[in-house]
Amino acid sequence: MKAKIKVTLKNGVLDPQGKAIEHALGSMGFSGVNGVRQGKFFEVELAETDKAKAEVMLKQMCEKLIANTVIENYAIELA
Amino acid sequence: MKAKIKVTLKNGVLDPQGKAIEHALGSMGFSGVNGVRQGKFFEVELAETDKAKAEVMLKQMCEKLIANTVIENYAIELA
Repeated sequence: MKAKIKVTLKNGVLDPQGKAIEHALGSMGFSGVNGVRQGKFFEVELAETDKAKAEVMLKQMCEKLIANTVIENYAIELA
Repeated sequence: MKAKIKVTLKNGVLDPQGKAIEHALGSMGFSGVNGVRQGKFFEVELAETDKAKAEVMLKQMCEKLIANTVIENYAIELA
């Protein structure tokens, strides 16, 4: 079973990397870019075939390793 | 207009960061993890309101700055 995980910074957390991209786009001539936020994206291949069990496992993975829940949100999508 | 961009490594491109996460999950007791690939995720806020124009602009941004098209694929999603 394949899963996709998006990890994004919580609102209010500064994102200097996103800001750098925003400024770079501006100086490259792209106008009207009002904001860029960078996050992380993971594709996980699981042997588990039960959707409910897989979701529980993925949540634990996110809480314990993949996301820093103090400053980051995560979203799990099962395919 | 908000856009989401996913940047993922092409098939066949080595992903040591993903491999490290895979091994870490294994040693933390998560069994049945057959693969992890890490990518990047961007949220872009555009002043442009025309969907077609925004898509053209986002494609150019990806080709020129956000993705390295030699080793990465990108997917644009307009909300």
